[in-house]
Parts: sequence; structure tokens; C-alpha cells
Amino acid sequence: VINAEKSEFNEDQAACCRISIRRRELGLEEDEEWLILCSTQFLTGYYWALFDGHGGPEAAIIASNYLHYCIKQKLEEVAGGITEACPPMHLSRRCVCNSDPQFVEEKHIHAEDLVVGALENAFQECDEVIGQEMEATKQTGGCTALAALYFQGKLYVANAGDSRAILVLKDNVVPMSCEFTPETERQRIQHLAFLFPKLLDGEFTRFEFPRRLKGDDLGQKVLYRDYFMEGWGYKTVEKADLKYPLVHGHGKQARLLGTLAVSRGLGDHQLKVIDTNIEVKPFLSCIPKVNVFDFALHDIKEDDVLIMATDGLWDVLCNTEVAQMVRSFLAENRTDPHRFSELAKCLVCRARGQRRGHQWMLDDSHEASYDDISVFVIPLHNRDED
Amino acid sequence: VINAEKSEFNEDQAACCRISIRRRELGLEEDEEWLILCSTQFLTGYYWALFDGHGGPEAAIIASNYLHYCIKQKLEEVAGGITEACPPMHLSRRCVCNSDPQFVEEKHIHAEDLVVGALENAFQECDEVIGQEMEATKQTGGCTALAALYFQGKLYVANAGDSRAILVLKDNVVPMSCEFTPETERQRIQHLAFLFPKLLDGEFTRFEFPRRLKGDDLGQKVLYRDYFMEGWGYKTVEKADLKYPLVHGHGKQARLLGTLAVSRGLGDHQLKVIDTNIEVKPFLSCIPKVNVFDFALHDIKEDDVLIMATDGLWDVLCNTEVAQMVRSFLAENRTDPHRFSELAKCLVCRARGQRRGHQWMLDDSHEASYDDISVFVIPLHNRDED
Repeated sequence: VINAEKSEFNEDQAACCRISIRRRELGLEEDEEWLILCSTQFLTGYYWALFDGHGGPEAAIIASNYLHYCIKQKLEEVAGGITEACPPMHLSRRCVCNSDPQFVEEKHIHAEDLVVGALENAFQECDEVIGQEMEATKQTGGCTALAALYFQGKLYVANAGDSRAILVLKDNVVPMSCEFTPETERQRIQHLAFLFPKLLDGEFTRFEFPRRLKGDDLGQKVLYRDYFMEGWGYKTVEKADLKYPLVHGHGKQARLLGTLAVSRGLGDHQLKVIDTNIEVKPFLSCIPKVNVFDFALHDIKEDDVLIMATDGLWDVLCNTEVAQMVRSFLAENRTDPHRFSELAKCLVCRARGQRRGHQWMLDDSHEASYDDISVFVIPLHNRDED
Repeated sequence: VINAEKSEFNEDQAACCRISIRRRELGLEEDEEWLILCSTQFLTGYYWALFDGHGGPEAAIIASNYLHYCIKQKLEEVAGGITEACPPMHLSRRCVCNSDPQFVEEKHIHAEDLVVGALENAFQECDEVIGQEMEATKQTGGCTALAALYFQGKLYVANAGDSRAILVLKDNVVPMSCEFTPETERQRIQHLAFLFPKLLDGEFTRFEFPRRLKGDDLGQKVLYRDYFMEGWGYKTVEKADLKYPLVHGHGKQARLLGTLAVSRGLGDHQLKVIDTNIEVKPFLSCIPKVNVFDFALHDIKEDDVLIMATDGLWDVLCNTEVAQMVRSFLAENRTDPHRFSELAKCLVCRARGQRRGHQWMLDDSHEASYDDISVFVIPLHNRDED
């Protein structure tokens, strides 16, 4: 984790640990003997996560201390249903209706879906914990969250924010997350403003225009988009359209309410648009999108890795460039026992660039990342299997 | 269009026509001479649409008479920007800001996006017209809408409902629409109920369960999903969970508020859940998803066709079966000048099946479609080009 001197304090945080999931007391009332057998069973998961804080490092620090605990807790809540391919309709396994297994099958509910649901619930729980903690300690700020969980032969990647995870395999690159920004979530955000106009308090326009409008545009028909449009139309500019747009700017400059560059994440419960009473939190989502990779369906090679990194890396390097670096570095350093952590360092240094006078430059003389940069390189291959 | 005897009246409607788009009076104030040249220019589009009515054929009839008019109107409103690859920021072409073309380019706005926006706006406009018309004539009901527009070298397919369009090309099948049902739009519908609980008036639960719960499930932990979950979790059943679910049933049986099998379409402004005051319309969307196919990027062969059909066809035949029938029929009937309409008839008859006693059966002794069935077969190849 490296602070590229953008802010006084590094706002990126990382966490990794083993998660032991205790199977809960199943059938407590029905079969005490069986309970004793069960209560000693543990399932093991492996967890890695990156948090990119904004408005201070506090939210990222709390998240890095709590999210794995929330995940453990939510997994334990469903542990009774997680060990079989098809979870039971009732956690107690009591069958209320004879065709319950059939209903579950018709809905295509598998153990994997319980893990996905647990991750979704864990992010929400963690967001509440952060809200309470920050309020109690009068701290502010928020963070993005990218979490990977290896559990029962599958890799789950849950993402809320603009960090990114990719699998670099021998023959291809598999994206394991997509970024949530005001730009990618424009329609969701505009729709909320359409449903609850009071959230904008008369200070913002929910419409998108190619640029911020000015007096000279009044009465003209200009390009615009509303919440329900993927295409564009022309609208006659009224005075209200001159207000600052709810979602504004393009690419890395895109901002929600002129304030935030991400649209999902944890924290920000107290965040208001500067000099107003407008809250940002209603427009944010703490729910991750979860992608699953099933190891049983792939032949994993020795140099196959999962790369997780905050936007500090991806702002200056694309998936293909990272994959190239990964493959050549690992091929050249086959015997080094620390080659995966060395590769992570190497990726961070590449994105950080070289100091030239007052600027940080990439090797190819493009500007380097001024953001904090964090990278995980996680080998996927199990040596025991060889 | 065939009524498979399910209802007394056929509820499917079809429409097709040529749409002439007049370029509006551009630069009226600035250059009168140029206006005279422009105002006689016409752009031509070709339009086909299918409407599957429910609760009576009225909405489908109005839609089949009006939607093309709404599309023509919305295209004319943006016609000044549609003829160039990059539309101008201002419809008047007056440049308020020197870098306006650059802003438009940065947002990747192309003429194609204006057509998509026009289709989105046209569906919304048509829905309003239907609402007014139905209220004035005290009629009820709604319909799905699937519209295809060939315009300026591209095929646009706009879909709101459960009809489907596919391209059957020589070497592959290209889906041009996806279905919107209470099942595919569960999260959007549940989220609305979360934001506005009053819409359910205490009669429905927004949670999804594998089956409707009953008294015996009370206090048990059962599988459930809330609006933010793609995965599943377990929740302790409370009394409120025994209410009828907002989205219930599976596949063709899935229903919104126990009432409707589709979640997008036109009309239904007056529709209420039977014996209650609960309105269905707030949960429906009239906005289509638009897919674009660019002919310039494909080598279109003589037998390549667009197939559009209502769910009556797709309930009993999958894309692959339809593609097989299309290819073999067209290959066997190469000289017949009416082979495309004959193929449409053949597809309808295949889905309608044969009468055996009280049942309609498919060739392979599976049950045939009991729904209305409508099919368009539209050749894509331009003979003039040969």
C-alpha cells in the first residue's frame, strides 16, 4: 500500500485473513446428540480485501477491521444450508411441505447463492457498523470495498466502488468486478432524484447534458438525458437546467452531487454537499456486485493469479498491461519463493512511476498515478495437488 | 396473427409501415434561404411492431395505431441532429461554447443515440396517449410492445414486455431483445416497494420466498431474497411474511401482485389488484430496452431474416428450433416469391400445433401454445445491392 503524496495520510487499507465458519447448533430441539457432533464442525474460507478511503482514512480502517467479521457472521447464519449443493428451504431442515426441495430446485437455488447473499448482507451490516462508529466518534468519511473470498472451491469477488479484481490466467484475463461510479450508475442515481426530488433541495438538476449549461444556452434545444434514457434527446433549456448537474463530468472527473467520485461504498453517513444541507448518502449504495469463479470448471496453472488493486493502479495501467507484466515477471522469477509479493511491489512501483522534478512520471513519460496505490497478487494454484 | 382459442377475442396486434421523417425548419432565424432547401428533405424509416394485449385488445389496438406516429414525431424532433455521425450540442447548430463538439465527442454521443432516445421517448408518449384514450372511453387493459425500426443503415429493436426478436443469420443467431417479466425485473419491483411501502397497502410482502409461506412456516428460518440480493439468505418467518408475495411464481407462472405476467408495456393505467385499491401501474415500466444492429458491420446473406414474435411462439419453440425451421424452409423454397410470409405462417402453425380431442398438440406430442401467436419474418438482404 503506497501513498503517492496526494494526501497527507494514506487512505488505502488492506486486510487478509482466514475465516473459520462454525456450523451453528442445528436441530437443537430435535436431536441433542447430533448437536454435539455438529457444533465442533468448522468450514474455512480465505479472505482478502482492499478499501480506498475518502474524506479521511477512518472508514477504510474500520472496514478493514470489521468486514471479515461481518462476512464470518453472515456465513455462520446460513452455514446449515451451505454444505450441500441444494440448500434446504428451512434452515432447521424440518420439512413443512413435501415439495419444498422441488420449490428450491425450481428457483435454481444453490449453496453458492447463500454465499453471495451472505456477502451482500455483510456489506450492508458493515456499512451500519461504520455509520454507528463514525457517529459515536464524530468522524467522517467513507471508502470503497473490494473483497475476495475463497470458499468451498469457489472464488467470490464482491465489489462496491471503483477498485478492480482480475484473474490473470495462462491463456486469458477474466474480469472479476466492474466499477461503480456516478457515470456507470447514472440511471439509478437520476431515477432516485426523479422519485424524491426533495433530495436535490432545488440546488441540482437531475438531467445530464454534455457540459454544464450557462445563460447563453437558455431557450436553446440542447442534448440531454433523463433517468430512463440510454439514448440522447434534445430539450429546450429552462432556467432550472442551469443548476449544477446531479451527475457531472466524464471518466475520472465524474462526480455525484459535485462531491464524490464513487457511487457505491461504505460510510459517508454524515456527508453533505459543501455549504448545503443536501445529503449524499441516499444516492450511495453499499451493496456489492458479487462475481463467482468456480475452480472445478477450470484447469488452474502454476502462474495463474488473482490481481486486486485500487484505482491508483488501474488509472494508469489497463488489464492487458497488467496481465503482460504479471506473466513476464512470474516467468522470469520462477524460483523466487517471494515472487508473488515481489510482483505486487513491482506493479505498485510501475504505477507510482519515477520522480522527475515536481512530477511523477511513468516509464513511457506519461503522467503516473497521484492516488494511493494498493495491489494484492494472490496465487490460485494449489501446490498440494501436483 | 392467430388466436389459439384461449380468449374470445384475439389480443395480439401487428403493425408495419414506412415512416417519413421531415427535417424540421433548421436555422429559421439565421438563414432563411437554407431553410427553404432543408424543409423539403425527408428521411425514410421502416417499422414493424407486435403488441400482445391483456385485459382486452383495446390497448394493443391503440398502440398499433399510434406508436409509429409517436416514433415519427420523436424522430422529427431530433431530425436536425440525426444525419451526421456526431450530433451538434445545439439543435440550432448555434455554437455557444467553442468546445461544444469536443464535449459531445467525449460523451461518445452519436446519431444512433438520438434514434435510441427517440424510441425511448416515443414509448413513453404512446403510453400517455393510451392512458388518456382509455380513460376517455372508459376502457381498460394493457399490452406489451416490440418494435423494429430500420433507419439509416441500422436496425433498432425496442422491447417492453415478453415478446422477442432474433436475427437468424447464415452462421449464427443474434438475440435482439430480452424479456421483461416480474421474474427478470424482481429487484426493480421489490426496490420500489421498499421505497414506497404504501404501494402494497399492507396486502403483499415484498420478499421473495421459494413458495408462498403458510402458518406452519411461522418462526422457522426460510430461504428469502430482498430487493438488494442476487443471492439468497435465511430469514425468520413473521406473520407479515405470510401475505401474498409482490412477485410470485416461476417462469410463465410468475405474476406481479398476483395480477400481471409482464412488468413492462403500455396501458394498464386503471388496473387494480382484484378486490383491492392497489394500483399495478406504479410497478410497470413503459420504457423499452433498445438494441442496435449495424448492417455496415455485417455481411448480410440472401436468407438472413429478422424474426419477431409474441410469447405464443417462444413459449413452445426456442431460438435454435426457430432458426432451424427458418434455414431449412428458406433453403427449400428459394424460388417462391412469397416464401417469407409462408415461413411466418409455417412458424405460427407449428406453435399452434394440431387439434387432438380437446387439446392442441405440437408435432412431438408436447402441448402446443394456448396463447395468441403472431410472427413477422423480415428479410434483411437488399436485392438491389447484388
